[in-house]
Amino acid sequence: METAQQKIERARARRETGLAKVEPKLAGLPDQLPRNSLDLSSSILTAREIELTEKYDVIELLRILKSRETNCLVELMWDQAIARAKHLDALPEPNGAFFGLPISTKEHHGMVGENIITTASVIAWVDRKHGSNVLYDDLWDEGCVFYARTTQPQTIMHLETVSNLWGRTDNPYNRDLTAGGSSGGESALIAMRGSLLGIGGDIGGSIRCPSAFVGIYGFKPSTKRITVAGQIGHMAGRETVFSTPGPMTVDRKAMELLMRVILSKQPWRKDPSIVPMPWTPHKFNKPLKIAVQWWDGVVKPHPPVTRALKEVVAACKKAGMQVVDWNCEGLDHKKSWDIISALYWPDGGEETLDCLNGAEDTVLPLTKWVIQEQPSVKNMTQADLWKLCYERDAYRASYAKTWNATADSDGHEVDVILCPASFGAATPHEKSKYWGYTSHWNMLDYPGAVFPVTTVDASKDVKDSSYKPVNEQDQFIQDLYDPELFAGAPVGLQIVGRRLQEEKVLAALELVEQAMGRP
Amino acid sequence: METAQQKIERARARRETGLAKVEPKLAGLPDQLPRNSLDLSSSILTAREIELTEKYDVIELLRILKSRETNCLVELMWDQAIARAKHLDALPEPNGAFFGLPISTKEHHGMVGENIITTASVIAWVDRKHGSNVLYDDLWDEGCVFYARTTQPQTIMHLETVSNLWGRTDNPYNRDLTAGGSSGGESALIAMRGSLLGIGGDIGGSIRCPSAFVGIYGFKPSTKRITVAGQIGHMAGRETVFSTPGPMTVDRKAMELLMRVILSKQPWRKDPSIVPMPWTPHKFNKPLKIAVQWWDGVVKPHPPVTRALKEVVAACKKAGMQVVDWNCEGLDHKKSWDIISALYWPDGGEETLDCLNGAEDTVLPLTKWVIQEQPSVKNMTQADLWKLCYERDAYRASYAKTWNATADSDGHEVDVILCPASFGAATPHEKSKYWGYTSHWNMLDYPGAVFPVTTVDASKDVKDSSYKPVNEQDQFIQDLYDPELFAGAPVGLQIVGRRLQEEKVLAALELVEQAMGRP
Repeated sequence: METAQQKIERARARRETGLAKVEPKLAGLPDQLPRNSLDLSSSILTAREIELTEKYDVIELLRILKSRETNCLVELMWDQAIARAKHLDALPEPNGAFFGLPISTKEHHGMVGENIITTASVIAWVDRKHGSNVLYDDLWDEGCVFYARTTQPQTIMHLETVSNLWGRTDNPYNRDLTAGGSSGGESALIAMRGSLLGIGGDIGGSIRCPSAFVGIYGFKPSTKRITVAGQIGHMAGRETVFSTPGPMTVDRKAMELLMRVILSKQPWRKDPSIVPMPWTPHKFNKPLKIAVQWWDGVVKPHPPVTRALKEVVAACKKAGMQVVDWNCEGLDHKKSWDIISALYWPDGGEETLDCLNGAEDTVLPLTKWVIQEQPSVKNMTQADLWKLCYERDAYRASYAKTWNATADSDGHEVDVILCPASFGAATPHEKSKYWGYTSHWNMLDYPGAVFPVTTVDASKDVKDSSYKPVNEQDQFIQDLYDPELFAGAPVGLQIVGRRLQEEKVLAALELVEQAMGRP
Repeated sequence: METAQQKIERARARRETGLAKVEPKLAGLPDQLPRNSLDLSSSILTAREIELTEKYDVIELLRILKSRETNCLVELMWDQAIARAKHLDALPEPNGAFFGLPISTKEHHGMVGENIITTASVIAWVDRKHGSNVLYDDLWDEGCVFYARTTQPQTIMHLETVSNLWGRTDNPYNRDLTAGGSSGGESALIAMRGSLLGIGGDIGGSIRCPSAFVGIYGFKPSTKRITVAGQIGHMAGRETVFSTPGPMTVDRKAMELLMRVILSKQPWRKDPSIVPMPWTPHKFNKPLKIAVQWWDGVVKPHPPVTRALKEVVAACKKAGMQVVDWNCEGLDHKKSWDIISALYWPDGGEETLDCLNGAEDTVLPLTKWVIQEQPSVKNMTQADLWKLCYERDAYRASYAKTWNATADSDGHEVDVILCPASFGAATPHEKSKYWGYTSHWNMLDYPGAVFPVTTVDASKDVKDSSYKPVNEQDQFIQDLYDPELFAGAPVGLQIVGRRLQEEKVLAALELVEQAMGRP
């Protein structure tokens, strides 16, 4: 019988076969990779290739994949992409909103085409045949080129990307930090402009955390706006909390483009669980009213995040926006985590752990943390589950009441919340143990867009030694902060809106970025 | 300790106290009630009162309640209604879309106001304090008068209305037949014009079945369009299949009015589980394309239902509509029931049966039938449940595919399906053991509107003795048919649309009724 190690080697060899097809061959990668990988591609590309890079050409995208400096790929689809490009080139005229655009995708989503294998980064599924999903069929129908499938962590439930099957995906800015997770293959690839637009998925931060950690844009819509039909994952059929796909990209405008094109396909006609709301751009008829969540009442953000908030707030005020505080004390974000973490694993993680154990797929520390070390996680009876869903709904209703009350003083309800995307910049490996700044919005099913703001500056972002952590988690997070370790790492922030107000969130982000002097 | 019987007597005495407040006192009810109750009210009302009846005045509504000829009430709110009417009269000017309109309500929904007790028709909850719910708060805010709370069956899961606590609610057309369930108190009350507009609830047919059985209108929207937040029921927090409130009324236009007013209140701001879709009236830009479901492939409708379908189809064709068949063979409506019946009781009915048994509330035959006699119903593990939800979603997707394919021939997708609301006219007591003509649309979460079409005519609706039932259920249903038993009973039909196309369904119903020569 094939051992787990043999399965891993076979899967990686399959990947090598794809990577080996890249033409022309690349050379010049140093044996010892530097801490920062961002300059690698320009050091091994020709002047002409660099020119193409700057023009965002697909050639550059495919080439850079070969460097493998962050280990972000599960599969390079060289033959399929070339065939697709030729097919598109042969069409009498360009056809489709994404004509010729290369789009990278998170591997477990599956893919149009034949002989697709989806591992979802577990050894058990190393040969699992899979096929198309509704979302990617629609993108395909709009003329895109699929060419690379990216890594996700074991169980797809870490805010870091590591698995026994594919290894670890590093942050291109700093190999000592994670590229985030679970869509960490996407974030690493896009950060290096190995892709301009990718599709991630998010159930607790898995689009937004990796986007923030590499300084790109990422958007998590409310669930049931974009279809997940056809994806492969654990616990298929669970409906206590849903994941959603969403764009990850170097370009803010690409997020809206993706949403608009996807919804123009009326996905609800194929997947009737989707809410049939066409994309309807939002227009504000008065200055934006922004609430700022300086912290969530559980874990204090690191200094660079607080500085980023201050900088954005200053720009928004200068632009005439109304800025108020979003005070989380009394809103019990801790409870939000207790509920959602239990809802992730209604069977106490049994199915997932069985899947790992059955294939000798060693349970990794962050898997252990998110399942076995959360006191909230239990194998529930149906009645236990109902009680928890009831609490979830009560929590959501109470949060809505708080938001409604923001209109009491002046009749102008808060439009969006500006908040951290994480407690800090990209986390050191194996330390991603606080999800609250993203998972809270999954718990509420609010859309959230992450955008790059600044980078860690050791001289500005000094550690506040006088701060007294308010609980154990806070202590753990504060202890992680070290200006030198994080120096140069990107810092992103997040704009959050009420449920199913995707258009409003992206419109608000545009205004905020304009206030920041961006186009 | 108080026995179950004493609790029942106490609850009924409480109801008597409310009924005794009606002024002026009524008299003249016969000791032995006739089979048909519809003429009772006019026989005991004065000429003046009859005039008011015909004008649909609130006085008539309150008066008729006193006759109790169908046992449709849990509570008459005489004092509260009078106080509310005085309050509204004292306002400087009319205010609210439902200013002064009496609205009757299904008891388990709860109610604005103090000292509200909600029994949900179980002995265990005979003293259960309850309060407002979001929907009724909004209706109240629009100036309505709540005055009567109506019966539902034990467990709220029969298509007939009977409980140990409140007894049986009869069909005003024929005391040998049921008024339907679970919103059977509403249907009986509205059929006698004891209410013009009531609120029912539907998870398997509970608005549509009782509406059809008494010849009124009833509308079940897709779930999550109208809020249920604040209702009391069994299995709070279960989300495998949802119920939804909806209007039951003597007047087609009142259904749209209710939907429009409710959604103008933006209920999603208070209950964020609601889909934030404002009411947007639908306009057809070509002749209606209607698919006719002559039968569901499981149980053949009784002759009056088939005749009703033929009559409506003839009228639609005459009006220039395109009519095609909706062939259910191959669509496996039997499977639809197997799935939804299991999803009703993910714990195998344990919580509900415990609630009954703990209060010596004898399990009634239709409770036993819907829980214990369905082979699909099991106490599931979480993994069992996921599998079933996955099957549910696959079934929904496959049905959507079938609907999409109706556009293949001419680019014109079927707008709505015309179908039975039940296999027959109102069912004899204790025989409501086939839900397929309504529960199937709950399974798919499609909106359905029921409208009155005809009444059973023994001379036209002869039994087809040559018909060979195709299975045991079909045999059971065919055996129920007896033209003499059903003579004079109303027959309703149903218009069904795709998920969240509430506006389209009501717009289609208007066109269909116009084709039938109605205003």
